[in-house]
Amino acid sequence: MTEDKKKLTLVLFSGELDKALAAFNIATTAAAMDKDVTIFFTFWGLNVIKKPGGRVPGTGMLALMNRMNRGGANRLKLSKFNMLGAGTGLMQHFMGRAGLPSLEQMLAMGKQLGVHYIACTTTMGVMGLTEQDFVPEVESFAGAATYLAAADEAGVNLFIS
Amino acid sequence: MTEDKKKLTLVLFSGELDKALAAFNIATTAAAMDKDVTIFFTFWGLNVIKKPGGRVPGTGMLALMNRMNRGGANRLKLSKFNMLGAGTGLMQHFMGRAGLPSLEQMLAMGKQLGVHYIACTTTMGVMGLTEQDFVPEVESFAGAATYLAAADEAGVNLFIS
Amino acid sequence: MTEDKKKLTLVLFSGELDKALAAFNIATTAAAMDKDVTIFFTFWGLNVIKKPGGRVPGTGMLALMNRMNRGGANRLKLSKFNMLGAGTGLMQHFMGRAGLPSLEQMLAMGKQLGVHYIACTTTMGVMGLTEQDFVPEVESFAGAATYLAAADEAGVNLFIS
Repeated sequence: MTEDKKKLTLVLFSGELDKALAAFNIATTAAAMDKDVTIFFTFWGLNVIKKPGGRVPGTGMLALMNRMNRGGANRLKLSKFNMLGAGTGLMQHFMGRAGLPSLEQMLAMGKQLGVHYIACTTTMGVMGLTEQDFVPEVESFAGAATYLAAADEAGVNLFIS
Repeated sequence: MTEDKKKLTLVLFSGELDKALAAFNIATTAAAMDKDVTIFFTFWGLNVIKKPGGRVPGTGMLALMNRMNRGGANRLKLSKFNMLGAGTGLMQHFMGRAGLPSLEQMLAMGKQLGVHYIACTTTMGVMGLTEQDFVPEVESFAGAATYLAAADEAGVNLFIS
Repeated sequence: MTEDKKKLTLVLFSGELDKALAAFNIATTAAAMDKDVTIFFTFWGLNVIKKPGGRVPGTGMLALMNRMNRGGANRLKLSKFNMLGAGTGLMQHFMGRAGLPSLEQMLAMGKQLGVHYIACTTTMGVMGLTEQDFVPEVESFAGAATYLAAADEAGVNLFIS
């Protein structure tokens, strides 16, 4: 990170489509304004950066939880009005009609603009996930101390739950 | 905005009564402490500043989604314990008993104290909403870049999802 | 609070286990890094610091709401995948296996590290709660103005809803 850029950090705790879209809209807009942006993905937010169709770690109940929680940016659901997927499909349809990129496209766009994607190692440990379970856009794997060091240098820090 | 005042921004992403109340409690308290306050309403948060009984734009599924999502500050529900409206009515009753203003009163109070209300144009585009769909207290209509410019100048920035 | 320490504030609005864990993970990590940390518990977040098995104030509907909302750090549920308690138990099991402390342990650990716990008096008034309803780790009882004064001095301020 260069010292001259203004910095912004986001904690993405949620794995829901609408909240992830809000996070990436802020992140890519800030990066396009030449800010140095970091997103720290924790808890359900890890779903956003899981490989699509990836492995389901654990056995028994943990496997069940990881299966329900499978993730991948193109599988997320709305936090409201999901309506068995109809609301989610509708949102995606109207985003396209309004000329907005999809979440997967925003993830790639953010990477190109230099957004730093960090996966929370504490949550990974609880859920039995390893570095191989995540998309290659993830830059590093770290805990809360690394996030806090970035937040300390940033003027804007948001928690999206 | 004058340069001498301390600034605070809120992103209100949620359209739920309890979260909107928390946002307006912080906003009006900060404004009464002579801070320059901005609330950026995005996603479901747009419901808080929709005209009560306003039009339901779109056709088919979008109309359905906008109808379920009708908004107006006096129609919001609690995020928990709504209990078919009983919990929400109870909250309003006990707020009144505790001498607290309603959300509609807080919206007007914030306006009088100079709080800046900005509606997110990106979400408006997705949901088919226009400037005429919002209460007159809304000061401007803008996207994430405008929000980020305000956040950059503020010492406290919160995201309420 | 000494003026030399970097400061961090959290608003904990949620009474859900996963969100409280995220808040305490950030708070205890920051305090261990020698930051001056304040958590302001408001709305459902008050549940996290209620005495376990405490009294259920109010009559009729308010008593019902307080009963459903009984709180105590060891009674909280996950915001997702609670599965009648199975998901919550699983999370606690795998946290233990990963060597992580429980929420109750984090609350005590934070206190030892000097984290300031403030209960929101406005919410207490609405819910009919008094100072006797909270665990002794709570340092003070105050409203939004006190929170805002702390946030003004802090470099990192997060709202966990």
